[in-house]
Amino acid sequence: MTQFDLKLERTLDAERDLVWRCWTEPMHLMPWFTPAPWKAVDCRIDLKVGGEFFNVMQSPEGEKFENHGVYLEIIKGTRLVWTNAYRTGWLPNGDAQPMLTTIVLDFANAGKNKTQYAAVALHWNEAAKKQHEEMGFYDGWGVATDQLVAYAKSMR
Amino acid sequence: MTQFDLKLERTLDAERDLVWRCWTEPMHLMPWFTPAPWKAVDCRIDLKVGGEFFNVMQSPEGEKFENHGVYLEIIKGTRLVWTNAYRTGWLPNGDAQPMLTTIVLDFANAGKNKTQYAAVALHWNEAAKKQHEEMGFYDGWGVATDQLVAYAKSMR
Repeated sequence: MTQFDLKLERTLDAERDLVWRCWTEPMHLMPWFTPAPWKAVDCRIDLKVGGEFFNVMQSPEGEKFENHGVYLEIIKGTRLVWTNAYRTGWLPNGDAQPMLTTIVLDFANAGKNKTQYAAVALHWNEAAKKQHEEMGFYDGWGVATDQLVAYAKSMR
Repeated sequence: MTQFDLKLERTLDAERDLVWRCWTEPMHLMPWFTPAPWKAVDCRIDLKVGGEFFNVMQSPEGEKFENHGVYLEIIKGTRLVWTNAYRTGWLPNGDAQPMLTTIVLDFANAGKNKTQYAAVALHWNEAAKKQHEEMGFYDGWGVATDQLVAYAKSMR
């Protein structure tokens, strides 16, 4: 990890395979991905290196924000890495500037029906880290993670 | 491709498999990689997605410049993509700022003992493109490509 990281670590009260599915299947990602009252209103996942991770967030006022990215590393049930620095075809995602970020998610077993979960947001510089923090990284990821656990339990 | 690209396209008078080896084996990369009188004095290649592409260039005065990067896509004999935006482990390569770049190399057959060759340098913004151009992208890649062809022929 580097000096420009933001990190959330938790033991989740949900099974690892369900948490993985919540991150890798659009129909199971959209229900929890965006802290309420925001909504995820679209999502595409092409689960391979260089494959698309696209989602659209909608504000309570109805404004939509498109997020484009690609996957960099996929180890089923264990690690998922993506970045908004690229679109598919390794095209630099200029729209994401200056807040280029890379997300590394690590999943591990943590006792019966629990998942050890780490989400790290890596940035290329202090300005991007600060912007991400001020946009509410900790609150946003915290609330979304609560929603993820509640949704994963509903999948049992 | 995007508005922030620099591109070199050529038909090379060398076999595609030799050109590929010149790009993917340190002992066959170092002899041609750096326009003379600069020298490549070290190189590490871990030819997998996320694997390291490291090289050190030495100026005629003896000053050394380390270049760190990782591979993003490898299709043997056909396509090679890497970036200096990351080090191994998907760590943002802050040292490369502001000239983060991604290189896409495409190789195809072009008649007997010839290779159709395209090298594209993709950037996240105009400033990085301009810096790369002013550092001598066209001259540098042009001379290096001449050296590549001469060296590849010597491998026959």
